[in-house]
Amino acid sequence: MLTVDEALAKVLLASVPLPPIRCELERTLGCCLAEDVHADRESPPFNKALVDGYAVCSSDWLATNTAVRLAVIEHVPAGRIPTKPVQPGLASFVMTGAPLPAGADAMVMREYAEPDGDHVILAPPRPPAPGTHWMPQGRELAEGAIVALAGSRIDAVRLGVFASVGASRPWIWPRPRVTILSTGDELVPHHLTPGPGQIRNSNSVLLEGLVRQAGADALVLETAADEASILAERLAQGLDPAHSNLFLVSGGVSAGTHDLVPGILEQLGVEPIFHKIRMKPGKPLFFGLKRTPGQSHPVLTFGLPGNPVSVLVGFLNFVLPCLHRLGGHPPAADPNPRAILTSSFSHRGDRPTYYPCRLEQEPTGVRRATPLAWAGSSDLITLSRADALVVFPAGDRDYAAGESLAIVKIPGRD
Amino acid sequence: MLTVDEALAKVLLASVPLPPIRCELERTLGCCLAEDVHADRESPPFNKALVDGYAVCSSDWLATNTAVRLAVIEHVPAGRIPTKPVQPGLASFVMTGAPLPAGADAMVMREYAEPDGDHVILAPPRPPAPGTHWMPQGRELAEGAIVALAGSRIDAVRLGVFASVGASRPWIWPRPRVTILSTGDELVPHHLTPGPGQIRNSNSVLLEGLVRQAGADALVLETAADEASILAERLAQGLDPAHSNLFLVSGGVSAGTHDLVPGILEQLGVEPIFHKIRMKPGKPLFFGLKRTPGQSHPVLTFGLPGNPVSVLVGFLNFVLPCLHRLGGHPPAADPNPRAILTSSFSHRGDRPTYYPCRLEQEPTGVRRATPLAWAGSSDLITLSRADALVVFPAGDRDYAAGESLAIVKIPGRD
Repeated sequence: MLTVDEALAKVLLASVPLPPIRCELERTLGCCLAEDVHADRESPPFNKALVDGYAVCSSDWLATNTAVRLAVIEHVPAGRIPTKPVQPGLASFVMTGAPLPAGADAMVMREYAEPDGDHVILAPPRPPAPGTHWMPQGRELAEGAIVALAGSRIDAVRLGVFASVGASRPWIWPRPRVTILSTGDELVPHHLTPGPGQIRNSNSVLLEGLVRQAGADALVLETAADEASILAERLAQGLDPAHSNLFLVSGGVSAGTHDLVPGILEQLGVEPIFHKIRMKPGKPLFFGLKRTPGQSHPVLTFGLPGNPVSVLVGFLNFVLPCLHRLGGHPPAADPNPRAILTSSFSHRGDRPTYYPCRLEQEPTGVRRATPLAWAGSSDLITLSRADALVVFPAGDRDYAAGESLAIVKIPGRD
Repeated sequence: MLTVDEALAKVLLASVPLPPIRCELERTLGCCLAEDVHADRESPPFNKALVDGYAVCSSDWLATNTAVRLAVIEHVPAGRIPTKPVQPGLASFVMTGAPLPAGADAMVMREYAEPDGDHVILAPPRPPAPGTHWMPQGRELAEGAIVALAGSRIDAVRLGVFASVGASRPWIWPRPRVTILSTGDELVPHHLTPGPGQIRNSNSVLLEGLVRQAGADALVLETAADEASILAERLAQGLDPAHSNLFLVSGGVSAGTHDLVPGILEQLGVEPIFHKIRMKPGKPLFFGLKRTPGQSHPVLTFGLPGNPVSVLVGFLNFVLPCLHRLGGHPPAADPNPRAILTSSFSHRGDRPTYYPCRLEQEPTGVRRATPLAWAGSSDLITLSRADALVVFPAGDRDYAAGESLAIVKIPGRD
């Protein structure tokens, strides 16, 4: 049976970033850049005033530490360009963000100015030094400088940067499209009341939420009963490369007589890559590839065990890294998070076990984990109170408070 | 001049959660719950088999440690209910997730079963103890138990929990609706090439991204020039309570002759709450309320200084907490984050200063901050390489490596 790391390596090997597309800037939030973005011009594009005030020659203060009276030759609002050079004895009024006139080498803030007809008396607390209160052309950015590397995730600040350099339609990796199917005779839609022996379908909306939190698009198919012809029809829908880059099926992957999903997937042309993984919960996880002639990318197909906690563990361990790879995401900033146990914990079992815990974060960031009382792999309620899963390695052992263990954070929890 | 904390207190006082609405479960991701959600039934709703196997009476092993031959009286797939009680000498085949038949007190996994006509020979490694491999009715959840408190943020796991208890249309706080307006004669749309003295409008897309990252809806108005009649028309649009809960204006709020925004907002009926804040960058930040007769909530109106870094600092310090309050969000898990300086830093200035830095997180979570070389408040490029802003208190001081300082995280950076 594969370990989690071995299985993940196989998933990542099959997960190739999708072909890049060009996209309107406003629609790229959360996507990743597929090209380097360059500055198309210097920034600032001219010597830029950083305050409202008077552009002057600092040499006018060479002979004095006090007030200087200058002739005002021009007013330059933002968006306009100065037309007259400033010389000793002269000043131009310049607004924040407007270009500094030629000849001027300092700005004096308007707070220190006293207008006097077509003159102004400037009395700054200290004589202005050359370079005061303006930014030289190109100080922030040279023309052609890289403002973001391919692979960067596009957040709000990068949207602003790209707008400022005119990258209005950047090349990005598109959001992966994910089709979701829950299977099981016992499932009813969540807005109905279950009959005897039935439960509501919670996996579809759980997976839809996980997929959307990961920045991908989700399409949810109608639930399928454990009946071969219905399953075959619904599974074929999900394997259509016109709609899916990735297909997530829950239920029907164990060894039971009603666990028909892997067999039907194979009949439909899915090449199985692995079926079982040495982990708890979520052991009977299926992964396979459906290739279509003429398509560069296969539909990556996951069969997740039907209980919701196995769905979550399978998603976090395998589907999320796969989605990140398809979407060209950069490696996580904190790829191997750990936390310190707040209490002792006795673990028994021959598989690595993913156990719900609360995290506490100290102001400087140290993380402490408290395992929760948990009723097992169908217990989604306890999971909804958890911030992360703490990973107990295989083997019976008593863990002491203060030991550090690997954790898997649950996305969406702050 | 107000301090940051004093100004924030005034913003929060004016920020009242929006009236709750009922919403289809699938559309609530990222919103906050406005009611407690209860379990409408026990979970599991019946004694539930946790494996595929045979429901038996453990007393059949009282006299033996080895194989037991039992008559198989029924097959119970998931979604069906058992119709026959199990007694000593009898067994029913039960699928994972199906109800345990009356009379049975243990499950034996199918791996240990050898079918023998209408009988089965069961040889588990140890005699089954009562309670093995099934979960008693109500073990996870009693009927009426609270599964999530009002104020909880709805993430993927909670979507799953709500589906399982039939909370298909929960009461939530709606996403705040935010209108965005950038002002300034010098601005051109980001897809055009700026002329002399002009720059591209980066604030609209920056604010749109920040608003959407915060889980709110954004509407961006056409850029307005610094001309009173145009500004008045555009500002009136943003103040319409039919479209806006919150109105963000950038530019035109300093003390310059072209800074018309606060005056026109007041003419349009906005009650000013404050204008300047003791912080750097972003000092001339305006906040006011536009009340409309018959409307319970005012339009909360922010005038942010026009340079993009001031926009970001104003947004993170004041707009984001306001949006969280309107949307009923719970307090942050890490409300006062700090980080440890990796290098010495000399700070000069009479206002608290928000300075871009990189964060590094150790595996157990300790955060270290490295201030970046920064060209000042119009330098958005450096900000795009930052993970957070480190806050240097007012006053001249040399900070040593290893000192701990408050930080403000930039949303969207992992």
